[in-house]
Amino acid sequence: MSSNSFGKLFTVTTFGESHGPAIGCVIDGCPPGLAISTEEFKPDLLRRSTGRSRYTSQRHEADEVEILSGVYQGQTTGTPIALLIRNTNQRSHDYADLEQTFRPGHADYTYWQKYGIRDPRGGGRASARETTMRVAAAVIAKKWLAAHHGVHVRGYLAQLGEITPDAFDWDAVEANPFFWPCATQVPALESCINALRKAGDSVGARVNVVADGVPPGWGEPVYGKLDGDLAAALMSINAVKGVEIGDGFAAVSQRGSQHRDEMSMAGFMSNHAGGILGGISSGQQITASIVLKPTSSIVLPGRSVNLSGEPTQVVTKGRHDPCVGIRATPIAEAMLALVLMDHALRHRAQCADVGMVTPRIPAQSWL
Amino acid sequence: MSSNSFGKLFTVTTFGESHGPAIGCVIDGCPPGLAISTEEFKPDLLRRSTGRSRYTSQRHEADEVEILSGVYQGQTTGTPIALLIRNTNQRSHDYADLEQTFRPGHADYTYWQKYGIRDPRGGGRASARETTMRVAAAVIAKKWLAAHHGVHVRGYLAQLGEITPDAFDWDAVEANPFFWPCATQVPALESCINALRKAGDSVGARVNVVADGVPPGWGEPVYGKLDGDLAAALMSINAVKGVEIGDGFAAVSQRGSQHRDEMSMAGFMSNHAGGILGGISSGQQITASIVLKPTSSIVLPGRSVNLSGEPTQVVTKGRHDPCVGIRATPIAEAMLALVLMDHALRHRAQCADVGMVTPRIPAQSWL
Amino acid sequence: MSSNSFGKLFTVTTFGESHGPAIGCVIDGCPPGLAISTEEFKPDLLRRSTGRSRYTSQRHEADEVEILSGVYQGQTTGTPIALLIRNTNQRSHDYADLEQTFRPGHADYTYWQKYGIRDPRGGGRASARETTMRVAAAVIAKKWLAAHHGVHVRGYLAQLGEITPDAFDWDAVEANPFFWPCATQVPALESCINALRKAGDSVGARVNVVADGVPPGWGEPVYGKLDGDLAAALMSINAVKGVEIGDGFAAVSQRGSQHRDEMSMAGFMSNHAGGILGGISSGQQITASIVLKPTSSIVLPGRSVNLSGEPTQVVTKGRHDPCVGIRATPIAEAMLALVLMDHALRHRAQCADVGMVTPRIPAQSWL
Amino acid sequence: MSSNSFGKLFTVTTFGESHGPAIGCVIDGCPPGLAISTEEFKPDLLRRSTGRSRYTSQRHEADEVEILSGVYQGQTTGTPIALLIRNTNQRSHDYADLEQTFRPGHADYTYWQKYGIRDPRGGGRASARETTMRVAAAVIAKKWLAAHHGVHVRGYLAQLGEITPDAFDWDAVEANPFFWPCATQVPALESCINALRKAGDSVGARVNVVADGVPPGWGEPVYGKLDGDLAAALMSINAVKGVEIGDGFAAVSQRGSQHRDEMSMAGFMSNHAGGILGGISSGQQITASIVLKPTSSIVLPGRSVNLSGEPTQVVTKGRHDPCVGIRATPIAEAMLALVLMDHALRHRAQCADVGMVTPRIPAQSWL
Repeated sequence: MSSNSFGKLFTVTTFGESHGPAIGCVIDGCPPGLAISTEEFKPDLLRRSTGRSRYTSQRHEADEVEILSGVYQGQTTGTPIALLIRNTNQRSHDYADLEQTFRPGHADYTYWQKYGIRDPRGGGRASARETTMRVAAAVIAKKWLAAHHGVHVRGYLAQLGEITPDAFDWDAVEANPFFWPCATQVPALESCINALRKAGDSVGARVNVVADGVPPGWGEPVYGKLDGDLAAALMSINAVKGVEIGDGFAAVSQRGSQHRDEMSMAGFMSNHAGGILGGISSGQQITASIVLKPTSSIVLPGRSVNLSGEPTQVVTKGRHDPCVGIRATPIAEAMLALVLMDHALRHRAQCADVGMVTPRIPAQSWL
Repeated sequence: MSSNSFGKLFTVTTFGESHGPAIGCVIDGCPPGLAISTEEFKPDLLRRSTGRSRYTSQRHEADEVEILSGVYQGQTTGTPIALLIRNTNQRSHDYADLEQTFRPGHADYTYWQKYGIRDPRGGGRASARETTMRVAAAVIAKKWLAAHHGVHVRGYLAQLGEITPDAFDWDAVEANPFFWPCATQVPALESCINALRKAGDSVGARVNVVADGVPPGWGEPVYGKLDGDLAAALMSINAVKGVEIGDGFAAVSQRGSQHRDEMSMAGFMSNHAGGILGGISSGQQITASIVLKPTSSIVLPGRSVNLSGEPTQVVTKGRHDPCVGIRATPIAEAMLALVLMDHALRHRAQCADVGMVTPRIPAQSWL
Repeated sequence: MSSNSFGKLFTVTTFGESHGPAIGCVIDGCPPGLAISTEEFKPDLLRRSTGRSRYTSQRHEADEVEILSGVYQGQTTGTPIALLIRNTNQRSHDYADLEQTFRPGHADYTYWQKYGIRDPRGGGRASARETTMRVAAAVIAKKWLAAHHGVHVRGYLAQLGEITPDAFDWDAVEANPFFWPCATQVPALESCINALRKAGDSVGARVNVVADGVPPGWGEPVYGKLDGDLAAALMSINAVKGVEIGDGFAAVSQRGSQHRDEMSMAGFMSNHAGGILGGISSGQQITASIVLKPTSSIVLPGRSVNLSGEPTQVVTKGRHDPCVGIRATPIAEAMLALVLMDHALRHRAQCADVGMVTPRIPAQSWL
Repeated sequence: MSSNSFGKLFTVTTFGESHGPAIGCVIDGCPPGLAISTEEFKPDLLRRSTGRSRYTSQRHEADEVEILSGVYQGQTTGTPIALLIRNTNQRSHDYADLEQTFRPGHADYTYWQKYGIRDPRGGGRASARETTMRVAAAVIAKKWLAAHHGVHVRGYLAQLGEITPDAFDWDAVEANPFFWPCATQVPALESCINALRKAGDSVGARVNVVADGVPPGWGEPVYGKLDGDLAAALMSINAVKGVEIGDGFAAVSQRGSQHRDEMSMAGFMSNHAGGILGGISSGQQITASIVLKPTSSIVLPGRSVNLSGEPTQVVTKGRHDPCVGIRATPIAEAMLALVLMDHALRHRAQCADVGMVTPRIPAQSWL
């Protein structure tokens, strides 16, 4: 499998650099007969986009998706679907002096060491711009999952620096640019970001994603586990440094009698497992949580070295987010949807003969 | 790629159930000319084995490895290396009544829902016994990594329930059956486990692993990232519910000015990133941390359902660990070693032409 | 994917050398709930085995299959199925002097150049003994294909040196050790082989395989074509130097008006295509043909070089077939069955939603 | 691996339909630091293009390649290289009536049966237009192979219907639009094609490809054999029905004493094997041969059925080649180059430690 490809059967291959002519992806393995139009990509791409509020980077990209193949008369044909978005708002001169220096906390140094050459403009391939195509590809996955299995994927910002939600309301999430589940805290988030802007600094964040309606049985032992694939998918998002399934690290200090989710025919009695047992979905809500590090693209000077190995100071110019976690919710949703889509196809490949197995505990949502 | 295979170029395929005739693995892609003998598997298999102390399951398995192929006159030939371990100490009658019930917190229900059939003896394929072969395969990876790159992989138990280390000493780690880095706390750990045994309960744990000597440049954007593959590898270990790279979830409340690791030609000035930037190794020590949930195999009765959908109570008999994290250290090391081995080969496949790139910041260890 | 693995979803990984302790395979992705017993492997392994008649190598191997995993109470569980056959009749001393020389027409020299080390005993990994596990794995594939789709795979020897069949009768094929479709020619084949034995020489052969009952729609554009995968599968058999689908090379001098298979609702009017159009099955009989080169393991001395680069003469001792094609029929069937099994699963992964498509031309057999 | 991807480490994913907006590919795994410009794609794309002479289809496509990613300041960066070619000369109205009927000998019926939907314009994804991107991707592979290993890939038309070459001259091959190795026969080929045009019919062809300079050791046992991968690659070309390596089907009637290539330190004494033994290159010239069926796109009416299952007659309009083999030479070269490129990387991944092995028989070319 290509290292720029994701998924075994619903395979997404992305390409493109932040400041190259275009970004794009090829989706292979999509079931035929799914209606899809360019309009349908817009809502999620807008949710992910920069420049949507003053709390994210001010790069404005139209993010117009062109469907190059795989769709005929508005329906997927089963052949590869290529999506293309032209880059239109590059300001590469912002990065001119970065050709000679390595920004601390960025991939500049590691790409240089690996390849002996790098595209320094806007982080090149390491830019979060690449995630645009994940969100685009996941639009198709989300639609198929909803239509065929009633699966719905959602997410929200669960922590911004030290701030945690006071209350939880799904309706609030989409009503503010932070994807924050408590409307009354939005001014506090705004103050936090404004203060960071002023200080020239950034902060970390936590994003939670959940999937409702996933039937039991998706996932494969032992290296194709649903949580294993999900961990890889979420960790592959820029700036992510940790992944939790269900209770995650809280389980360190839990007792077995507390953590195990007892069962009845009315449902599971808790969901510490996050809907996955032995790498296979249990029919409960799937829950995962990620941390996004504070971006290193800040105005405060940082010590580094230049191409000649001399000490230097780096001040990141360009247009950046004080908290990259703010825009990460649709990206994390996308990765969850892509993993589920892939496993939906993998499951029916091997187990289509199995049919409905009893006893089946009803599907449950906990959030 | 088979779902019971791991690694793109150094590919390990495992097979076997806890109480079947044998477990084994096939290692494909191993470089030729590496000296290997059955003796060399013993130390790590002993470190992982049950029955080694009274603090783990009392199942005693000899874990005698037989090399079936791929080694000629004591050297790897480049063809697939098959390793086989016969199961000798199954006590399947312990599991007779589990054929009819689903243990809470186990994979019983999800395997049943997926396949419509399951081997209930000892957890079947979902048993941690499978990890024996990961440890065996990693013996080869560790040896090659040390010989060719001076890479060393180590791990330790970093938290047991609420107990955290008071001090850190690598020498202590291998001197107690907990892999605990502070010798004076070992009696407290023993008391904790004894109390859990008495209570019929279990507790979670945290295990940390580190790799020293990894050169910069291993890992591939953007879905073959070193940390992405590591997350999948570690999450695929039984009972793992979370993975952190570097500072992990602590980064949620960090500032960018604090988290970014500044650089000089004497070295990086910190290692919040855990040795990976943009999915590629930076030449610093690679650090990862995992949580293992408290095992659900406990004596305290748990509510569940049986095959007919009737409510029932489950008491786990058999031989179990009060904390599965105690034996997890060599398993986590194994997965780290396998990921690094795979990426060592992947890196030279694509980038063997690149050669030594300047400026190169010296390799660093932080622990 | 490991290079010793075959198949994307029904993945077979083989291991073992001709004169090592054992050969074996791991089958991953098999649908659960298929009844299978060790007895069922015997007929096809016997068909493939040496020592069955005086016209093949006199190596007598019991080929007792042990099922190590993946089967519980006589049924596949969906987890990896490991099969093991111990080697019992090695006569490695036959190969002692081959450690120093490279046999012309064998893999000795190329393995040496690739790996810098090789197991010379009986050809090591390059021995046709490896194909035993292909036949074993295909027993499972054949059973599933027959049970779920009514697919049947058969083959026969279509040419031995200059001898071609005078008549065609499926019943004759299994009634002689050559898999020859014309009973009256069997004495001529015997004479041919006896003359070759006497002359210390060998001869090439052609084997044809067909699959009946394959529904239309299996196969994937454009690098996962059914004929593309079949070509790889058949070419991977030892000694195969060519693969044809349908009319194969005869199409060089055909006209389009002759080759295209015209269609009616009663059926296709011919089958020049061999049942595959655009890489996808058409519902007609699938036909393929392979050539097996004359084995280089002959008594007539051949010029070669030794490890020191000095000229030498090689006389192949050991127990060899004057025509390796004689035993190739079950191996070629096996590869066809494995390809079909893999594509059956791949097809339903992507296209299970499609359902029955009209108009459907009835399935047809031409042989 | 996606079914529209080719290659394990040098992975080419193609997309696009004949009459869609564009065709393209993504090349992942390319070594960094290779100079490449859009100009370099032109020669091979021109060799492959239609409309170049009156003996091929009159569709005129500019085939202007745009490099969308993976190249910075004229050099490959190691990140995915996306190439795009806009379709400009579609005449889709030619295909309007094909929406209702299935052309005999085409993929129309099989795509319909597989997907329940198809893009009928110009054959959609099944069109040979897809091969444009194989040729484009291979330009990069050819350049790297030549620069790093001195490997050169060439091909020629070896048979057109009943016509075979009277003489062989590499210089002649590129001097006529047929890639024919004997200049004096070109008028006869022209007459043949003109006669077919007049008759409204088509004819088959044979194309041979060779690679010079391939070192010994490329290829992997036993399902990643160089000849196995090559067979899949060549069989995946539209209209190909057979593949031969070395002597191919001629080996059926050869003797072992004749076929085995004897060896000396001056070289191999023959090349019946086509440069591959045991799936691994021997250092001799690699030779392969393919048959391309006579295209079914002919003016002579053919019997078929329509979407309603009623009998109908099909006359193929549009712009077609009387012999698709004429333009197949650069495509076959491309597939050979892509297979070699992939195996060059695979070999050094596993065996970079091996170094130069003695005795090494000098590289040889036989044609």
